[in-house]
Amino acid sequence: MKTALATQFGIDYPIFGFTPSQHVAAAISRAGGLGVLGCVRFNDPEELDEVLEWMHDNTDGKPFGVDIVMPAKIPTEGSHTDLDSMIPPEHRAFVERTLDDLGVPPLPDGDRVNAGVLGWLHSVARSHVDVAMTHADKYGQIALIANALGSPPSDVIATAHDHGVLVAALAGAKDHALHHVDAGVDIVIAQGYEGGGHTGEVTSMILWPELVDAVGDRAPVLAAGGVGSGRQIAAAIALGAQGVWMGTYWLTAAEYKLGAPEGHEGPSTVQQALLDASSRDTVRRRIYSGKPARLLKTKWTDAWDAQGAPEPLPMPLQNILVSEAHARLSSSSDPGVVAMPAGQIVGRLNTITPVAELIDDMVAEYKQAVVRMHKTLKG
Amino acid sequence: MKTALATQFGIDYPIFGFTPSQHVAAAISRAGGLGVLGCVRFNDPEELDEVLEWMHDNTDGKPFGVDIVMPAKIPTEGSHTDLDSMIPPEHRAFVERTLDDLGVPPLPDGDRVNAGVLGWLHSVARSHVDVAMTHADKYGQIALIANALGSPPSDVIATAHDHGVLVAALAGAKDHALHHVDAGVDIVIAQGYEGGGHTGEVTSMILWPELVDAVGDRAPVLAAGGVGSGRQIAAAIALGAQGVWMGTYWLTAAEYKLGAPEGHEGPSTVQQALLDASSRDTVRRRIYSGKPARLLKTKWTDAWDAQGAPEPLPMPLQNILVSEAHARLSSSSDPGVVAMPAGQIVGRLNTITPVAELIDDMVAEYKQAVVRMHKTLKG
Repeated sequence: MKTALATQFGIDYPIFGFTPSQHVAAAISRAGGLGVLGCVRFNDPEELDEVLEWMHDNTDGKPFGVDIVMPAKIPTEGSHTDLDSMIPPEHRAFVERTLDDLGVPPLPDGDRVNAGVLGWLHSVARSHVDVAMTHADKYGQIALIANALGSPPSDVIATAHDHGVLVAALAGAKDHALHHVDAGVDIVIAQGYEGGGHTGEVTSMILWPELVDAVGDRAPVLAAGGVGSGRQIAAAIALGAQGVWMGTYWLTAAEYKLGAPEGHEGPSTVQQALLDASSRDTVRRRIYSGKPARLLKTKWTDAWDAQGAPEPLPMPLQNILVSEAHARLSSSSDPGVVAMPAGQIVGRLNTITPVAELIDDMVAEYKQAVVRMHKTLKG
Repeated sequence: MKTALATQFGIDYPIFGFTPSQHVAAAISRAGGLGVLGCVRFNDPEELDEVLEWMHDNTDGKPFGVDIVMPAKIPTEGSHTDLDSMIPPEHRAFVERTLDDLGVPPLPDGDRVNAGVLGWLHSVARSHVDVAMTHADKYGQIALIANALGSPPSDVIATAHDHGVLVAALAGAKDHALHHVDAGVDIVIAQGYEGGGHTGEVTSMILWPELVDAVGDRAPVLAAGGVGSGRQIAAAIALGAQGVWMGTYWLTAAEYKLGAPEGHEGPSTVQQALLDASSRDTVRRRIYSGKPARLLKTKWTDAWDAQGAPEPLPMPLQNILVSEAHARLSSSSDPGVVAMPAGQIVGRLNTITPVAELIDDMVAEYKQAVVRMHKTLKG
């Protein structure tokens, strides 16, 4: 599975694993891929700093990356109170009524209310960049900064390059990809419709080669959306990608403990929901962030699809509206009501498995697929 | 590009090309693939009989197939008048008003009114089977009968097998595929979300390997939805398919003349619309047949998305409602108003090219992709 991009990063396999869990990210890097830590959940830069220290201590000197959520244009921002006041009361009433109807208990800990939103804000994302650059200088392990929302601002790209860090950005359409490379982005992550979280309308089978052809020699393309097996990695390479970007697939890794109470044994509520879901059990809706994002289909998403439900608010208001609800849904013990971004690959999540085993299996299946394909050239 | 399925059919490449055009179907078979003639447009069995004679005369003895549209359960049927009476007047008024608003002229030839629907009816599809079986016996070239709507009725499968013809059926989900093999279908065509015409929600990247794993040794899988290059064929083989099923890709073949006036030079109105479209210019809607089908996004589909537009009717009523409109839209000279099933691969349709050249190019690109992939195993 050697590609030019794998060689450039000095990793065994061009498997880029996005995850909010430092335990999973570190395991991916240790197993020969590149773990990319999602930073949106770190409202406090010091918390990110500590986690990156932990990453350094647990990755045997191997490279890893960080993922931020930063729009190129600075969006509506302001104090929490300003933003709160922009949310219509009917929307709040709908959320409350829905949580009641679904039997979701209130949070035990009142101070977590609305905490979820801050990582989406420009100022907070910028603090993530600052912390990451400090760590890049300190240990030289941070090899990549990825942005999930458009091209990062030009000064962020310049700063990353000054610190020897490459910049990647997600794209769901050709014009996004071209904008990225024009802005100086080093790697385009082509995310198809089937992917979890924010996605466009064009599927991976169509989008990956389209973006490969569009950016040509200007940037390598990572294939995202729908990857959870060695055969799918082979398809990505067949279509011209230099590697894969995987997110959903790690949510049922044995190392993934986010959202589970301390000391919890077995799959968490969210993991149980993921294990139960088939490839048909996702929907793409604006209800998570204000922009279309693929989520697990649950009673929560059904409620927003029902007649009489309000239209979702624009970003960042929708996430402020639902962030307390998300916390309440996640801490409920009912897998039927979680609010969870997940791609259609969720149908392949059927066991809780350690990261190293997941990667070994994919690498073996990749080789089998390529050998099988090579035989079709004969005869 | 030799797979077991290609060997079984005695064809050079496992490229199955679905097309309503006998000229395109014959060219696909002559070029080493398997042309599959769409029969839904033949309301009169004698017309199909003549066209199959023409196919025999123009395929150098090579195998080809036919595609019918036949639900396993016999749906609401009846005389044209019965069905007509089930259409609400508000729906008719909306269609008339929309055509007026779009400046679409009436048909020059009144007797084509409503003709489009008959091929969807069970009795008409059954006549297609009868004609095809007669030809299978006569020349031994008809190697495949494919059904686009569920498993064919069991007696149709038995009849095909008696005549030495294999049976294929489209599936958009695992349970459909398992139902097909239980019913005796020989080949499962896994059609992803991005495909043209009737599609499900699960994309090709996810669906193809899911169905390959689900049916296992019981049936080979053809990959449909999103194929229009050698790299995409390589992806299909990587994901475990035994070949590809392509539809949209042939619509801008030089041999495709349907919908163009006799003696017309250059691209037809529909072909111009296809050449102009990007991968983002399709929508999946119930407005064509009553079931979700992917269409080119045009002013016609926009009108059905606008506020105040009626909900589409169930199959077969919706197609009866719009069949005259389809004829009028197609004979208009405005590429902005066509009603045309097309997959997201339409973004790759940028030239009018002969079938043989399209196939040669895909075969060459397939080889390049496999050789490139094989190199990733070294080092």
